[in-house]
Amino acid sequence: MKSLRARDVSFLSEAGHWMYGFIEELYPICRSITGEGVRETLRRIAQHIPIEFHEVPTGIQAFDWTVPMEWNIRDAYIRNGAGERVVDFRKSNLHILNYSIPFRGTVPLETLRKHLFTLPEKPDYIPYRTSYYQQNWGFCVSQRHAETLREAEYEVCIDTELKDGSLTYGECFLQGATDQEVLISCHICHPSLCNDNLSGIALVTWLARHMQGKSLRYSYRFLFIPGTIGAIVWLRSNENITAKIRHGLVIAGVGDPGKPTYKKSRRSNAEIDRTVLHVLRERGSEFSVREFTPYGYDERQYCSPGFDLPMGALSRTPHGTYPEYHTSADDLNLVRPEYLADSLSISLAVIEILEKNSLYTNLCPKCEPQLGKRGIYRAIGGHPDAGKQEMALLWVLNMSDGKHSILDIVERSGMTFTQLREAADLLLENGLLKKFDT
Amino acid sequence: MKSLRARDVSFLSEAGHWMYGFIEELYPICRSITGEGVRETLRRIAQHIPIEFHEVPTGIQAFDWTVPMEWNIRDAYIRNGAGERVVDFRKSNLHILNYSIPFRGTVPLETLRKHLFTLPEKPDYIPYRTSYYQQNWGFCVSQRHAETLREAEYEVCIDTELKDGSLTYGECFLQGATDQEVLISCHICHPSLCNDNLSGIALVTWLARHMQGKSLRYSYRFLFIPGTIGAIVWLRSNENITAKIRHGLVIAGVGDPGKPTYKKSRRSNAEIDRTVLHVLRERGSEFSVREFTPYGYDERQYCSPGFDLPMGALSRTPHGTYPEYHTSADDLNLVRPEYLADSLSISLAVIEILEKNSLYTNLCPKCEPQLGKRGIYRAIGGHPDAGKQEMALLWVLNMSDGKHSILDIVERSGMTFTQLREAADLLLENGLLKKFDT
Amino acid sequence: MKSLRARDVSFLSEAGHWMYGFIEELYPICRSITGEGVRETLRRIAQHIPIEFHEVPTGIQAFDWTVPMEWNIRDAYIRNGAGERVVDFRKSNLHILNYSIPFRGTVPLETLRKHLFTLPEKPDYIPYRTSYYQQNWGFCVSQRHAETLREAEYEVCIDTELKDGSLTYGECFLQGATDQEVLISCHICHPSLCNDNLSGIALVTWLARHMQGKSLRYSYRFLFIPGTIGAIVWLRSNENITAKIRHGLVIAGVGDPGKPTYKKSRRSNAEIDRTVLHVLRERGSEFSVREFTPYGYDERQYCSPGFDLPMGALSRTPHGTYPEYHTSADDLNLVRPEYLADSLSISLAVIEILEKNSLYTNLCPKCEPQLGKRGIYRAIGGHPDAGKQEMALLWVLNMSDGKHSILDIVERSGMTFTQLREAADLLLENGLLKKFDT
Repeated sequence: MKSLRARDVSFLSEAGHWMYGFIEELYPICRSITGEGVRETLRRIAQHIPIEFHEVPTGIQAFDWTVPMEWNIRDAYIRNGAGERVVDFRKSNLHILNYSIPFRGTVPLETLRKHLFTLPEKPDYIPYRTSYYQQNWGFCVSQRHAETLREAEYEVCIDTELKDGSLTYGECFLQGATDQEVLISCHICHPSLCNDNLSGIALVTWLARHMQGKSLRYSYRFLFIPGTIGAIVWLRSNENITAKIRHGLVIAGVGDPGKPTYKKSRRSNAEIDRTVLHVLRERGSEFSVREFTPYGYDERQYCSPGFDLPMGALSRTPHGTYPEYHTSADDLNLVRPEYLADSLSISLAVIEILEKNSLYTNLCPKCEPQLGKRGIYRAIGGHPDAGKQEMALLWVLNMSDGKHSILDIVERSGMTFTQLREAADLLLENGLLKKFDT
Repeated sequence: MKSLRARDVSFLSEAGHWMYGFIEELYPICRSITGEGVRETLRRIAQHIPIEFHEVPTGIQAFDWTVPMEWNIRDAYIRNGAGERVVDFRKSNLHILNYSIPFRGTVPLETLRKHLFTLPEKPDYIPYRTSYYQQNWGFCVSQRHAETLREAEYEVCIDTELKDGSLTYGECFLQGATDQEVLISCHICHPSLCNDNLSGIALVTWLARHMQGKSLRYSYRFLFIPGTIGAIVWLRSNENITAKIRHGLVIAGVGDPGKPTYKKSRRSNAEIDRTVLHVLRERGSEFSVREFTPYGYDERQYCSPGFDLPMGALSRTPHGTYPEYHTSADDLNLVRPEYLADSLSISLAVIEILEKNSLYTNLCPKCEPQLGKRGIYRAIGGHPDAGKQEMALLWVLNMSDGKHSILDIVERSGMTFTQLREAADLLLENGLLKKFDT
Repeated sequence: MKSLRARDVSFLSEAGHWMYGFIEELYPICRSITGEGVRETLRRIAQHIPIEFHEVPTGIQAFDWTVPMEWNIRDAYIRNGAGERVVDFRKSNLHILNYSIPFRGTVPLETLRKHLFTLPEKPDYIPYRTSYYQQNWGFCVSQRHAETLREAEYEVCIDTELKDGSLTYGECFLQGATDQEVLISCHICHPSLCNDNLSGIALVTWLARHMQGKSLRYSYRFLFIPGTIGAIVWLRSNENITAKIRHGLVIAGVGDPGKPTYKKSRRSNAEIDRTVLHVLRERGSEFSVREFTPYGYDERQYCSPGFDLPMGALSRTPHGTYPEYHTSADDLNLVRPEYLADSLSISLAVIEILEKNSLYTNLCPKCEPQLGKRGIYRAIGGHPDAGKQEMALLWVLNMSDGKHSILDIVERSGMTFTQLREAADLLLENGLLKKFDT
């Protein structure tokens, strides 16, 4: 797993540009919770990692929910008397109320206004709005744009289709040494919005691609799913798998300039929570931590009381709190390769610790073993303090009673995970420890 | 229970004036731990609420204590050579050392001084002093008053009686839906002292009167008892009831201008403790919280280790820490209707939460239920945050695993009890929750 | 045990001078982890307290360690061409690398330098260096001293002997009322270093001498052992005793001017930890507390995971953090009688609390007992607060449910151990308490 750890600047910079390029490629596609946009997105991901496609038919029951009709769009516009497209889906796929029913007709401005969604407080941005479960038609436009529309009759055309079809999601599974799993999930249902969540899609794709073929302790399952309904459908189809999930992360909004934010799991002190916190603290740069709340991304479903999975969520600026959120301003200027790379380096460090955080048993638990005769302790005594490596050896020996993992020792000793894990490896080599969990 | 919650200004103002008027009525009566003063006080209370009178005969054993002889007083004075009453019980019933034995005789000033109690550091106040369990006679006077007495012979008359009789206390019981009880206790043994504890008597009387006929979850037992010995006698006679007491409050000193003070139960984190703290915090005005100590009012007895009842104590300025405490200055000027009303509003809010703090089970625990199809979640998606009501619904659903009460969810979510309880009611109506404890 | 408590200034001053005198006596002896220096030191201690000498033969296995060959030294020097001793063991026993193998020969300066140990950053101090487990020869000199040596041939003589012999330690055992033990350990292996650890040796000797013949609750075992190997050998020979050890202290570095430092046991909240903390807080002067780390003195062995004994360590300035540490400057000027006495007074106070920290059962747990009729509560009521003694009585009664020791009540009440213990004694006399653990 050494290679997972990416402190190397050029390695990270290259990864950042790769992810940014992938975002550029996916940006124009009009996605929703079902339909061709999702399929096309998954096909692009599948060019990099092995993806299993799942199609869940319309009408399938998933707990309290039903898979909706599949939605697709060909075109949508509003035309004025002069035959000009005054609102045009071809210019931005945010212009259409996502999941809008088909509509054709000529309506006065007064009627049209009831179907126009704007953001008066941010007059230049087109809002992103959806109506998945209530039939409605509409357009989203900037406030300034809406204000240019004069009293008149307008020709409205929404060339969408709602039909019995299916909901599509993709899954990439990497088998590790054990069947215990790490679940990494990102939502793929948003249209042309970069941070939310092409950033998450790009990061997870990079991660899966990078980890392929590596020798792993855990098995890793990467989910590319429509938000909410996708997570619900997945959980419904995979209830038997949930018992194997030891750790998990929802990844979304990881490309903006804000500082990294970790939202804890419902359990609040799961190993994933402690691991991410350790990584963020050790980096030395700013970050924020939020307690679990039952709102946000798909951790809402994974952490519902019937599952209560140990899954947190990694973002940069939290959803809903940056001005570009869910608007046309969440574009290719908001996300930058360096922030994607920074989020990636956190993810890699977290995975590395999950992989390496073992419990050990000291095979020489009564008094200290004589490290000097094994050549791993200095020969001349009397110095005022022990070196870092010697301290790490002593800490691992002292705490390895089968109850304290390396991460526990990190928290008690104030030493780094790397120092302690290297000490554990040296002690293993010298026959002074054994793994508790193998 | 809606009507219990008294945020209405005129309702509270009216209640404040009612309580103050009742204090004015009870003020002149000379009470002690036994005798006619207590009986007369209980008769006045009984004009407002159904009171059961209990008479416990002198000599009855109650744990380590014995019910003392009954004490009554007709008159008491000190007369000078000119036949003038220089100290006169008829002017203030604090002048007599409470429980003073009868005495008649002529004594020189020097002897008299040994039986005079003053407060040199507060020279204008008459102290309140008692000698229940050690036979003694005496008078309490202000320091300035004592200084006016010249060397001379004084005629002393203490026309009191100590006889085999009984200790009297009153009990008002309101049956609720369950036999689990809330115990509310106030001491009634102090003579003309307003804050300590005519304020408590008036508040508890108002409360019992207000709650009569209401549909209640818990049964409520209101005790009007002499301090210490009364609580001990009641506990001795009602040991079998103590197991049913789920929550309790001692109410005393609730009419002065100080900020509200809550003293925690010995358990320190009982539901009553958490409830009062939540109410005090939610009000937004100043308050103070004290850890349990084995000194104070009758919580000393209720929280003795053999009972350890979950009972806290509600006051304003803590006993012993205001200058008027246990002196003639604890009079009708110290307590005010608005402070009584403020203490009452706390009590009502506490009771309302006790009544409504239930545990629920989410009937749809795997993933979120689809609130939208039930019309309790907005139809258009994409907004940056959920509304308060939606957050409350999500919190209640997420935490209702049979282990978290509404109050637990309050503490975790930072939302108010009212918001969460209303959400729970809405979810109950929609068949998404069931009560855990019914 | 009253007499243990030493607040008396002249008593402490006398003890300080006694300890300082003993340090002066032991200072010149060249000690090591084996050999005649240790035996001579123990013989001097044995003039004051009953010491059992233990000789553990070379080659004996103790867990992961082997008792080394016994080391003795007669003389050691470096002579220049003029026949002058330029380095001379007779001037300071720190000049010899402790456990240096015998060597005789004439070597050029270049060769000699590889066997010279200096402290360049403290150029006037001779460092203290050892090589117990790796065969080596060498001298320790100050940096300035080393710089005076010119290019030349030097005659080296190290007249030491390594032979099959034994490791020596001493043990003083005082039988108490129970077989439960308090273990007090100090290391005796350092040559002419005063604070580290003649100060500990002197303090422990004084303590054992003082406690002889006293009536004690616990049995006390005082160990005078070579550091590391001595503790390991003792634990190996006394595994069956370790289960009886209820509390323990390692005492070292207790004579310098720094503020007292307590290092917690691995358990971090053992009774010894809470006791020492209480003593240090109650004194009102500065102190520091350190969490357990697996480095330091013999707590490393006692707190190894296979034993995990409840043992902390008492020092003044922590080892390794004062400039004189392990150098010739740790001499008779660094330690002072007053600091020794101050450390002693902490030790005595700790032992007094260990001896007196009992659990009680309130024999009158339902309501308060009537203290007034027993004459231990004031007769006249109505005062604004209880006196200190009355509060102590009430606290002890309220918390004595068999689950709270006096120290627990100290922590909850904020009262002192002395106040509460005196209250407990008064309640015992009055038949209101019984000891829980007798």
